[in-house]
Amino acid sequence: MSLAEQVLNGEIRAAARLMRDIDDSRHSAIEELKKLYTSTGNAYIIGITGPPGAGKSTLVDQLTAAFRKKGKKVGVVAIDPTSPFTGGAILGDRIRMNRHASDEGVFIRSLATRGALGGLSRSTSDVALVLDALGMDIVIIETVGVGQDEVDIVKTAHTTCVVMVPGLGDDIQAIKAGILEIGDIFVVNKADRDGADRTARELNNMLEMRAATEGGWSPRVLMTEAQRGNGIEELTGEILAHRDYLFTSGVIGEFLKERNERHFVDILRDGLFKRAMAFMAQDGTLARVVAGMGDGSIDPYSAAEQVIGEMMVLDGNNGAA
Amino acid sequence: MSLAEQVLNGEIRAAARLMRDIDDSRHSAIEELKKLYTSTGNAYIIGITGPPGAGKSTLVDQLTAAFRKKGKKVGVVAIDPTSPFTGGAILGDRIRMNRHASDEGVFIRSLATRGALGGLSRSTSDVALVLDALGMDIVIIETVGVGQDEVDIVKTAHTTCVVMVPGLGDDIQAIKAGILEIGDIFVVNKADRDGADRTARELNNMLEMRAATEGGWSPRVLMTEAQRGNGIEELTGEILAHRDYLFTSGVIGEFLKERNERHFVDILRDGLFKRAMAFMAQDGTLARVVAGMGDGSIDPYSAAEQVIGEMMVLDGNNGAA
Repeated sequence: MSLAEQVLNGEIRAAARLMRDIDDSRHSAIEELKKLYTSTGNAYIIGITGPPGAGKSTLVDQLTAAFRKKGKKVGVVAIDPTSPFTGGAILGDRIRMNRHASDEGVFIRSLATRGALGGLSRSTSDVALVLDALGMDIVIIETVGVGQDEVDIVKTAHTTCVVMVPGLGDDIQAIKAGILEIGDIFVVNKADRDGADRTARELNNMLEMRAATEGGWSPRVLMTEAQRGNGIEELTGEILAHRDYLFTSGVIGEFLKERNERHFVDILRDGLFKRAMAFMAQDGTLARVVAGMGDGSIDPYSAAEQVIGEMMVLDGNNGAA
Repeated sequence: MSLAEQVLNGEIRAAARLMRDIDDSRHSAIEELKKLYTSTGNAYIIGITGPPGAGKSTLVDQLTAAFRKKGKKVGVVAIDPTSPFTGGAILGDRIRMNRHASDEGVFIRSLATRGALGGLSRSTSDVALVLDALGMDIVIIETVGVGQDEVDIVKTAHTTCVVMVPGLGDDIQAIKAGILEIGDIFVVNKADRDGADRTARELNNMLEMRAATEGGWSPRVLMTEAQRGNGIEELTGEILAHRDYLFTSGVIGEFLKERNERHFVDILRDGLFKRAMAFMAQDGTLARVVAGMGDGSIDPYSAAEQVIGEMMVLDGNNGAA
């Protein structure tokens, strides 16, 4: 039985192995993903994003417990801002989620943000696909919401929760502006801290401006204390309300179209790049170009156009370099 | 006279126009960059990174002033975590740096992190190249150091300063671990705050472990209060000390080789991707694939392999998808 079939049968070890193969960029992983693909699309994906220190992991832990109580199987993809070398937070996530360790209905996977071949949003999509195929009803993607990469990752989610926390300092205003557009639900976590009401009020003010121009779903600001489990029930309720909105309004169609396009384009970009690297490895082009850049005899823009010209069937320079 | 020649003559308006063309992904920008390239490599690039709220912009402002006092021309590339739609922090940066607005020896450019076609590290390299060609002695790249994209950007810098601040909460430990490897100098800013000594001590402890395994340059931890200008002179001194180290040790050679390779590979990846999008636009392939993904008749992995197969001179599937 192929790895894909085993995953579709709900075999957790097979899923773990396939995820390792995805990590290692093995071509065999692609073959298995091809077999899985048309059996997926059943999991509901929730994105949890926000600045460092917002308590996202604790919130994910609580949401996992809440959905388990409803009888849902839960997969978690935690995108880790630390290096694979130090491994600190990868271990940290696992420890924090430890209470689910013996629960067969929970599958937790940490992805390192560094050294991810072919882009993190691509790996996240692939891993979420495996969790979906494995029969997880809910897939939670947790990521630090500051960089472009992280914003792209969250676009995979049906419902995105932006987690804020009182008192994070000056630049936070800028981050709020940046992630305002991607949030379907806003959460002020550590709501027992000073300034929580002010943070919620500021968010509400910013959201009012957004709502006026966009219409449709109006994001609400919820208060939680994830550490104590306060506000979690309301949050899961709001997530389900957003899901209902997506399906009853028909917005889901456009969402899936955009998500599919992004996923395909990511795969295509990776594939092209790998081909180019293999092509250049044949005759040492890469080393030659880098040496030429070093001694000032080659500019990288012309060199890239030349390599592309040699690789491609097409000619003309539409869109080259 | 070409735009490239005007930039090499030190004409600021020409540089601003070329940067706009880079933003707009105009092909003409590539042609100008080709002409510039071999006249660059003179600017010393300093990366300033750290979590939100660390006071990076104020520190950059102070460093700019300090290098101006030494008679150096300074270019700044500020990578902005906000959306181009809100524009909030782009404006913010400009206001904060306002005291240099009438100084011809300072050129400040904000880049939005969103909507950057072809990757932010590529745009940053291109913009830094223009500042170099314009005759800037120092180019400072300021970025929020949390995501992968931001880490890649900082790799362009000769000297990377990681800015920390006391009391940013739980996750900060994870971030420290992640950025520990990229820092040449560590700065505890807002050093008048409670916990500054503890933050410095923690950093020193972590750095000791690193130094033991790596040898070479030993990063120091400096204390600053950027708002008051305290510690800035020591910081500029340390940056220059790191520069001396790079050149006297010969490490500069390996650094430039890696940087050049990354820059070339970025350009190549972008160029291939643009070609692929143009190729698919000819016959509506993209829309057809996305529709097929939607109704479950097409998987994106096979579709990507097929498109690549049609585009490429090569056959075989080495590295496809």
